[in-house]
Amino acid sequence: MDPCDIKIIDALENLEADNDEDAERLRDELDREGTCLINIMSSPGSGKTTILTRTVRELGKEFNIAVIEADIDSDVDAKKIKEAGAAAVQLHTGGMCHLDVAMTRQGLDELGRGFDLCFIENIGNLVCPAEYDTGAHFNVCILSIPEGHDKPLKYPLMFSVCDVLIINKTDTSAYFDFDMEKIIENALIKNPKVKIFPMSAKTGEGFAPWVRWLAEQVKKHTESE
Amino acid sequence: MDPCDIKIIDALENLEADNDEDAERLRDELDREGTCLINIMSSPGSGKTTILTRTVRELGKEFNIAVIEADIDSDVDAKKIKEAGAAAVQLHTGGMCHLDVAMTRQGLDELGRGFDLCFIENIGNLVCPAEYDTGAHFNVCILSIPEGHDKPLKYPLMFSVCDVLIINKTDTSAYFDFDMEKIIENALIKNPKVKIFPMSAKTGEGFAPWVRWLAEQVKKHTESE
Repeated sequence: MDPCDIKIIDALENLEADNDEDAERLRDELDREGTCLINIMSSPGSGKTTILTRTVRELGKEFNIAVIEADIDSDVDAKKIKEAGAAAVQLHTGGMCHLDVAMTRQGLDELGRGFDLCFIENIGNLVCPAEYDTGAHFNVCILSIPEGHDKPLKYPLMFSVCDVLIINKTDTSAYFDFDMEKIIENALIKNPKVKIFPMSAKTGEGFAPWVRWLAEQVKKHTESE
Repeated sequence: MDPCDIKIIDALENLEADNDEDAERLRDELDREGTCLINIMSSPGSGKTTILTRTVRELGKEFNIAVIEADIDSDVDAKKIKEAGAAAVQLHTGGMCHLDVAMTRQGLDELGRGFDLCFIENIGNLVCPAEYDTGAHFNVCILSIPEGHDKPLKYPLMFSVCDVLIINKTDTSAYFDFDMEKIIENALIKNPKVKIFPMSAKTGEGFAPWVRWLAEQVKKHTESE
């Protein structure tokens, strides 16, 4: 298939089933299939797609990777992911501000199941996606340096539900009044167990610990299959 | 009152009235009172508060200014606004991802009516706030250089409903792959009438045309009182 030929799915919200119960069911299914599902959430422009394309390039030989791209409109991200070498499907949410399990399932079914590692690139929004369990094994929140170190205080739910916090665009630190100690302190107040990876997905600085952590989680899943 | 003594209101959503009808009513009231109400929307960290504090400093002698700060939690922004010299009230939305007219009214009533110029600093979110008419006379969307020039394609409603688009943090252009011609082209596709102000609220570069435009709108309102 041509890398620019992106399948676009109009995702439909789950109006009937209990989203949390369905999320548990999906996690069980993926455990049996040996797939590790990672939900990536952030504001628009924090670097989700750049982090994903670099991750695909670094882990694509070791693992079979797919990405569910969720956007209100456009398919620019799915094209970049395919060019990086992973399977990708584009979900259009029709204005919806988050993804739920029903939408995740549509994405997974469209891709075909059985990948080692699957990412959801959620809608760019620090508020609503945090309220919905997508069925992922891990929630990853990305905050970029230009957004400021006060964000955990202003968007508390997002920083409470994430297992991993990536602090991206560290290459731009010199140009912004960003206090790295303060963001780590603020993040740990909201979530003492969160794993924090400062990095620049553009230059590669700090990227290795994230890839190492990710590879460990995927291996745990594929081994327990 | 001590500038750090911020009144915090737990804002309640309008569940009964028709939000659009109520928005028209509020605009009529504000027209009679000679108040120009401006709704500021953007992602977290695009510079809403920095733009507002600079605007308050530049126009605070000419006009009587107030700001309704909406946040899910914290009162860091309201403190900065008061320090800049405007009246401010902090609305806590209790997890809600947007403001509606009922919440705007609570903010206005708490401030006391009769200001020349009132701003709403909406929740940091490029999706949901665009769906709700707050009763403002003008919607202003801020996009900052680090967020990328593709955003009008990915968040079409926000870029369709805004009367003004501020492109902030132009002082950081050299460090990001941001195409100014492309963002203007993308914004005009979604909204041919939008007024665009590229600026750096930090350095002041490009700030004067925004302040000039704003002062013109306020004068029209106070003169038609």
